[in-house]
Amino acid sequence: MRAEFHADLAEVNYLLVSMADAARTAMRQAAAALLNGDQTSADLVRQGDEQVDALYRQVEDKVYALLARQAPVASDLRAVITSLHVATDLERMGDLAEHIAEVAQRRYPALAVAEELRPVMRDMADVADRIAGKITEVLSTTDATRAAELERDDDAMDDLHRQLFALMLGTAWRHGVEAAIDGALLGRYFERYADHAVNAGHQIFYLVTGEVAATG
Amino acid sequence: MRAEFHADLAEVNYLLVSMADAARTAMRQAAAALLNGDQTSADLVRQGDEQVDALYRQVEDKVYALLARQAPVASDLRAVITSLHVATDLERMGDLAEHIAEVAQRRYPALAVAEELRPVMRDMADVADRIAGKITEVLSTTDATRAAELERDDDAMDDLHRQLFALMLGTAWRHGVEAAIDGALLGRYFERYADHAVNAGHQIFYLVTGEVAATG
Repeated sequence: MRAEFHADLAEVNYLLVSMADAARTAMRQAAAALLNGDQTSADLVRQGDEQVDALYRQVEDKVYALLARQAPVASDLRAVITSLHVATDLERMGDLAEHIAEVAQRRYPALAVAEELRPVMRDMADVADRIAGKITEVLSTTDATRAAELERDDDAMDDLHRQLFALMLGTAWRHGVEAAIDGALLGRYFERYADHAVNAGHQIFYLVTGEVAATG
Repeated sequence: MRAEFHADLAEVNYLLVSMADAARTAMRQAAAALLNGDQTSADLVRQGDEQVDALYRQVEDKVYALLARQAPVASDLRAVITSLHVATDLERMGDLAEHIAEVAQRRYPALAVAEELRPVMRDMADVADRIAGKITEVLSTTDATRAAELERDDDAMDDLHRQLFALMLGTAWRHGVEAAIDGALLGRYFERYADHAVNAGHQIFYLVTGEVAATG
């Protein structure tokens, strides 16, 4: 029964790694659509999000089967429910990548991001990618260093978010209201993507070590 | 065992009703802070959100205890896991009410919402309140009419969201970039609150009837 439980949980974790990879790829493609005006990428993001959603349903089915068949208790039960929470975070990350691609597509063939915002937005995309990459690392290595880094990455994202607003609210801003609204919403999507990724990372760290990750 | 299961699930549902009430009150107070510049309300929203979070932890504890003690299967298991999903939606609703109160507080004693946007924003707050109210009705009455109405309420919110953007992007807009950014983010918070409320309502309907709610 224990061996079977661990085999089932390993399958769930494998699905979570696939979800995290798909959510990361979707965000990379969304960033390409946004920053390079790459139309193909926007289509790929939608497909990627569908893949994330399909994997989510597989996680849910596996979790139901596992709970029904094995009735785990204590830390085993907690691991199973935590997997479900992680899947929910990863599912939202796919949605947020799609929101970003939608903004890009709405302005296509023009670029949705004003020139002055592009460096900050590119940094936000890089941080998002870095955090998403750490989820899979934490899932596969149980390395506490990676989990601790998540908090710093999240701070970096918050910092970029503030820079973005400073640019749009500065006296030099000359792109008007529509570009600022796009910028504000895009900033929010990147920030939420990072929040969900950090949250997923912390929960996985807790899952694999039984410890709450050090913050700050 | 069955009687015990139903008593436990009823307790979880009672907590969900309390959560939905608290998330609804928090949004009412957030709207008062936003639209009337009521400073006291913004403080109450924060307390309300803490109450929602505390109730969420109680739901989670109850769900763990229930799964561990009773090892439910089939539709009973589905009901328990669905409760947890509903609690997650309600928890997010509390967060979003707090985000709205934060925007209000950042501009206090000025009003964060430009005069022309206030009627639309007031309608958004009303629709949000109506949807949140239906969650508790669906939880306590299993009335299919209420669940079906959720979809129409959600459409009403989307419609208001479009009106909001039309006002900010119209040629008559004279409040500049900062007020437009506030407006766009507030619109997003109201819309997400409604999304989570509709999602919670549908899941509860499914829970109490075993049927997927009619949409459209």
